[in-house]
Amino acid sequence: MAETIVIAQGGGPTAVINQTLVGAVLEARRRFKGVKVLGSIHGVRGIRDNNYVDLSDIPEEQLLRIAGTPSAALGSTRDKPDAAYCEVVLKGLKEKGADAFIYIGGNDTAGTQGILSDAAAGSIAFVHAPKTIDNDLCENDHTPGFISAAEFVAGAFLSVDLDFRALPGIYVGIVMGRHAGFLTAASAAWRIDEESGPHLIYAPERAFTRDRFIDDVQRTLDRHKRCIVAVSEGVSAEDGRSLVETLTPADRLERDAHGNVKLSGGELGMAFERMLAEGLPGKRARVDTLGYMPRGNIATISKVDAREAFEAGAFAVEAVDHGGGSVALTYDGSQTINKIVPLSHVAAKTRHMPDDFLDAHENRLSEKGLAYFQRLVPEKFAVGKPFV
Amino acid sequence: MAETIVIAQGGGPTAVINQTLVGAVLEARRRFKGVKVLGSIHGVRGIRDNNYVDLSDIPEEQLLRIAGTPSAALGSTRDKPDAAYCEVVLKGLKEKGADAFIYIGGNDTAGTQGILSDAAAGSIAFVHAPKTIDNDLCENDHTPGFISAAEFVAGAFLSVDLDFRALPGIYVGIVMGRHAGFLTAASAAWRIDEESGPHLIYAPERAFTRDRFIDDVQRTLDRHKRCIVAVSEGVSAEDGRSLVETLTPADRLERDAHGNVKLSGGELGMAFERMLAEGLPGKRARVDTLGYMPRGNIATISKVDAREAFEAGAFAVEAVDHGGGSVALTYDGSQTINKIVPLSHVAAKTRHMPDDFLDAHENRLSEKGLAYFQRLVPEKFAVGKPFV
Repeated sequence: MAETIVIAQGGGPTAVINQTLVGAVLEARRRFKGVKVLGSIHGVRGIRDNNYVDLSDIPEEQLLRIAGTPSAALGSTRDKPDAAYCEVVLKGLKEKGADAFIYIGGNDTAGTQGILSDAAAGSIAFVHAPKTIDNDLCENDHTPGFISAAEFVAGAFLSVDLDFRALPGIYVGIVMGRHAGFLTAASAAWRIDEESGPHLIYAPERAFTRDRFIDDVQRTLDRHKRCIVAVSEGVSAEDGRSLVETLTPADRLERDAHGNVKLSGGELGMAFERMLAEGLPGKRARVDTLGYMPRGNIATISKVDAREAFEAGAFAVEAVDHGGGSVALTYDGSQTINKIVPLSHVAAKTRHMPDDFLDAHENRLSEKGLAYFQRLVPEKFAVGKPFV
Repeated sequence: MAETIVIAQGGGPTAVINQTLVGAVLEARRRFKGVKVLGSIHGVRGIRDNNYVDLSDIPEEQLLRIAGTPSAALGSTRDKPDAAYCEVVLKGLKEKGADAFIYIGGNDTAGTQGILSDAAAGSIAFVHAPKTIDNDLCENDHTPGFISAAEFVAGAFLSVDLDFRALPGIYVGIVMGRHAGFLTAASAAWRIDEESGPHLIYAPERAFTRDRFIDDVQRTLDRHKRCIVAVSEGVSAEDGRSLVETLTPADRLERDAHGNVKLSGGELGMAFERMLAEGLPGKRARVDTLGYMPRGNIATISKVDAREAFEAGAFAVEAVDHGGGSVALTYDGSQTINKIVPLSHVAAKTRHMPDDFLDAHENRLSEKGLAYFQRLVPEKFAVGKPFV
């Protein structure tokens, strides 16, 4: 039985993170009659600054409308609390009489919950509800937010491939993804035939080399007259650092509170433009940075993703009764099943895309990879085969 | 009565250019029993190279599937025929016994039809069917392809604005548009309230200055804590050239057959990153190049756009009986009406966005501009108001 629950949203917004928020609020109100549900504004920052919105009595209709709207309705933060910050947050939660704190976010957010949970020593239930377009949470088959973002990326690359059939050339699309290549690889989910792009996929999990890249593109042009390339923002150089980091002067590198380097799609895009201009002079080449387009796009909210995100929020309230933990979306071979796993299994860890999702000798999606993405992001459009 | 009609697609593909193709093919088959309809592959290039696909007997079902698929199914070209090329094309059309040539495209394509029509002196009907995401054809209220692209842009900026409510900062999205700012300005069509972005719009029709830009952004941040900016690729410098042209060393400028400079969103994006880093140091700023995302996106095909594009194709066949001309989409105050106008009224001319679509003293959409875009791209999503 909980009398007061605090809830917040952390990290990058997604198309369905508000489903999780509303799923949790409605389930808390259903399960704990008369419960007070406080939404902390801008993640833990709202607890620190005593800045809340009372969600206890907001009409269900209004909440459901927010659930269907992308981005974090409570605001978000990238604050990574240190020991002192944690103490302030714990004090804030106690002052509100919180029995539980549900924090919706990715692995950095789970990390914050782990630190708070250790410091609180059992007096409050700390629950992490998953969300990330990166799909990189350990213990999860996939994560809320990923499917919608993947639908955007799959549709975008299907569309660009059709465009470049009509006017041949080289296209490079740069896709969010710091350490995990799932979202970039999802670009190939809706390929219409063996000819179709994206023909090449460069994920953070495989070291990128310029010479190999130029060879890959040339070979693809020889085969298909066009070459469509999907590149992760976090694609790594041979020395293990991100390619952006090796390309950007140290004094221009920007870092967030978690020490993450800002992955400027722009720097990377220009680097690809230069590589192509030098390596394949005279070829028509275009580079786009998809950046923020996929992650909370209102036009590509997946119904399955929305439902799963809502249910993950509701399940987070169940986890309150179990003393906390991280909600994980697992797969039993036929459906998605929510489980509670220890925060430490998810906190600050990265699940990488399995190496065999890409072909061993080519930067193409393997059959295994394709099967995974086609399960999560099944074909949605009936495409007519062009004459070219 | 036409016995043989040649049809082709030119310029940048759109989400609905195949609707126009299929609308024309089906209407030609209906109107002229037994007609031969030849699709020229890659625009006039197919006529030059005798490279056609016979569309006379392809099942309607297959054609309708192609109609619903983005990008030019016949392939496209940016070739701009000179006198010698025109002679070869005319010879090719005559060899096929063509009574008419329907060419679907923008103002460059209309220009090609004008040149061919003048050279042919009446023996063949030359029809231009409109398409362009730029919405910049004279005599047209709007053009097939624009509405779908505008829906993408409106949805993308609505979504990014929600994202930046959650995690404040400055966002710059760079949108296609060489000489006309319609597509960039459509970014504001779905603003949910007075607080909403895009807050600033920079179109090719108004000279851009760095100082004014930094002032605009600072003032917006003071008001709203975030600043969402939409910039046309073709935004112009004070000297009338495109900003990209003034920023790029002459030896790196790339031009097409029409003499158009390649508008690299990447160069422009990096220029904006530098301006913001220098003018507003320490502020979180992100720049994306939407590039090819909006123009043929399979996820945002507008039903109205698809229908109008189909009807423009069918109307182009009617224009054959009138000896040729350019199909124009006009508006009578309540609906879109197709008309035939002389090729010379459209050929190689640009319709600019009216200056009063932007406020006189601010780079914001005016009431008049908003009314135009809301008519063409009515609100599509029920957005729940965030708490931040």
